[in-house]
Amino acid sequence: MENDTGWYREKGSEGRRVTLRYLTKQSIEDIAIGAAVLGTGGGGDPTLGRWMALAALEEHGPCPLLSVDEVDDEALVVPSGMMGAPTVLAEKIPGGTELDSAFELMEQALGRRIEATMPVEVGGVNSLLPLVLALRKGIPVIDADAMGRAFPEVHMTSFHLDGLPPGPAAIADEKGNGVLLYPKDGTWYERLARDLTIQMGCSVAVLDYPLSGQQVKQSGILSTLSLAEQWGSLLRQARGDGLDPAGVLMEKTGALPLIRGKVTDVDRRTDGGFTKGALDLEGIEDWRGKNLQLSFQNEFLVARAGEEVLASTPDLITVLDNETGLPITTEAIRYGMRVWALAFPCHPKWRTERGIDVVGPRCFGYDFEFVPAELRRGVRK
Amino acid sequence: MENDTGWYREKGSEGRRVTLRYLTKQSIEDIAIGAAVLGTGGGGDPTLGRWMALAALEEHGPCPLLSVDEVDDEALVVPSGMMGAPTVLAEKIPGGTELDSAFELMEQALGRRIEATMPVEVGGVNSLLPLVLALRKGIPVIDADAMGRAFPEVHMTSFHLDGLPPGPAAIADEKGNGVLLYPKDGTWYERLARDLTIQMGCSVAVLDYPLSGQQVKQSGILSTLSLAEQWGSLLRQARGDGLDPAGVLMEKTGALPLIRGKVTDVDRRTDGGFTKGALDLEGIEDWRGKNLQLSFQNEFLVARAGEEVLASTPDLITVLDNETGLPITTEAIRYGMRVWALAFPCHPKWRTERGIDVVGPRCFGYDFEFVPAELRRGVRK
Repeated sequence: MENDTGWYREKGSEGRRVTLRYLTKQSIEDIAIGAAVLGTGGGGDPTLGRWMALAALEEHGPCPLLSVDEVDDEALVVPSGMMGAPTVLAEKIPGGTELDSAFELMEQALGRRIEATMPVEVGGVNSLLPLVLALRKGIPVIDADAMGRAFPEVHMTSFHLDGLPPGPAAIADEKGNGVLLYPKDGTWYERLARDLTIQMGCSVAVLDYPLSGQQVKQSGILSTLSLAEQWGSLLRQARGDGLDPAGVLMEKTGALPLIRGKVTDVDRRTDGGFTKGALDLEGIEDWRGKNLQLSFQNEFLVARAGEEVLASTPDLITVLDNETGLPITTEAIRYGMRVWALAFPCHPKWRTERGIDVVGPRCFGYDFEFVPAELRRGVRK
Repeated sequence: MENDTGWYREKGSEGRRVTLRYLTKQSIEDIAIGAAVLGTGGGGDPTLGRWMALAALEEHGPCPLLSVDEVDDEALVVPSGMMGAPTVLAEKIPGGTELDSAFELMEQALGRRIEATMPVEVGGVNSLLPLVLALRKGIPVIDADAMGRAFPEVHMTSFHLDGLPPGPAAIADEKGNGVLLYPKDGTWYERLARDLTIQMGCSVAVLDYPLSGQQVKQSGILSTLSLAEQWGSLLRQARGDGLDPAGVLMEKTGALPLIRGKVTDVDRRTDGGFTKGALDLEGIEDWRGKNLQLSFQNEFLVARAGEEVLASTPDLITVLDNETGLPITTEAIRYGMRVWALAFPCHPKWRTERGIDVVGPRCFGYDFEFVPAELRRGVRK
């Protein structure tokens, strides 16, 4: 197939010269892994995302990926993905028809054609579902998202930070129910959409934040599909070269180690449309004698050693398999697994006062101030 | 004002001769009362409905009422009203803007003008809100509804019995949130809409079941605004003539007496978006020594004397003030009130097998078969 022979294609598009890049199978596999690292335990299982995207590629063949520079300012761009509890997503695999339904509802609501889609968050499934939808609808995917990671609530986006309205938002399930939301603001959007998601079975397709190309350029978090691919590729090559993948990732990305440890307890439940819980880690190898507790709501939100907070939202906390460096999601992690827990500084947009107001520790009920992970004393450099 | 001088107007409408009737203040007052009798304790407080309709009449002036014969087969008719818990409706009085918002969402969803509205149920508020909307939008109201009484769940309509789809349904609150639902079927409609209603504050404006004039003729329950007016007028005249209003109503309508009694206990709560509970009545005058318990979910659903069921949904159970004959709603009834409890046979559509499947006692969790009130042994003729 054409898209297996090279990553970049030159293509003329109505007089404007656009460099279209087509995603290969390898890049999809790397994106799935890298996105799950950036997904901080949420955003869906990379095996599922990879499988869905490869199947769609096989059926509909090549998928163009546009950098935001290549998007027309006037183009109608609508992000897409799944919303709900990852525990449910892993068992109720999206078939694609719910994405189609949400897409069609959105086009109907706006009265015009959607010209491109993009992820709203980075994650093993949610980075790749826009690609599935794009392939089904014959439109390109844009190399950007609106979180630079995954967050549990739908309004926790860089679009929301910039005051862009979330509606109309289209929600559809696999049973044939569809909803168009015109929420007053982002907070109401989360409230109404979360409840509908629970009623519709805890895992639904969502298209929201319909934007112009120009708005995506201004308010999106750019090049995160490429970033996910780069990290996924790094981990793959480290494995191939017999190196410690987590070690390579720390070296190349400046990720901070929280612990190398064994999972000694997992408390996990599906609650209020989320996967919530906590897990305990006990240090192994150089980390013997240390402990870590990770709390999560779809995504890992807080890392603590005893009473001391080592890292917290909006910084990224990620768990990788000790041997393979493959990311482990909050719904997949099990007792006895040996893992690395790492922290990454989040996108600067989230470290602003407004950013902390929307996704800081207090937004999830934690009673402490955000301190950047790299400034926390307990984090070993 | 023109509509105060006579009830009927002759009007030519594009070659077709249509007899337009305009609602007067008196007819609105009578409808409010009669509708609350037919509302079986639900459908909203008649004082609120009357007040809202008279204010709209004052502001926008005369409101045409069409019998279904006068409706064009091709006309787009969309029923309108409030959904939620009557306890909340009584405190969070609709301002009209939520009706406008739902109306505009519906027109947008359908891509055409709504040509008439109608009640979906009979009740002190829900019979008159379509009139308020009609006045605000300059369209007529149709003399029909889809229950012939009030029921607590949104799909409990004669339209649903005939297999007509409820969507798109437009829901709006006073805060600026709007939703368009495209439910798979009536049961999903209730499920999704009820949850949204709770999130949006337990009292929202709803437009649903967009239909053609012909579908309303086939599947509506006809002339129920006129029926409400007739009953309201009957009670008013009985009061004026110094007669026992409940006695006159029984004589003229064939209503069955359940008890004349004093309210000795009221258990009421707002639960799951409904007003739920039960009340105890102890016989007075000729009924001394008798007892009655009424259970309700927005509407009165079951009347029992001890273990014996005297009347149940879908038959109508209504409570009237002992002196004035004015209907008392489930959210307004209080300890110590002296009342008449009456039962009325429901519309024949509800007594079919399919009707009982949708609104019979088992639909509300009661473990007994429906028996028509007039055939129950315990009911005194």
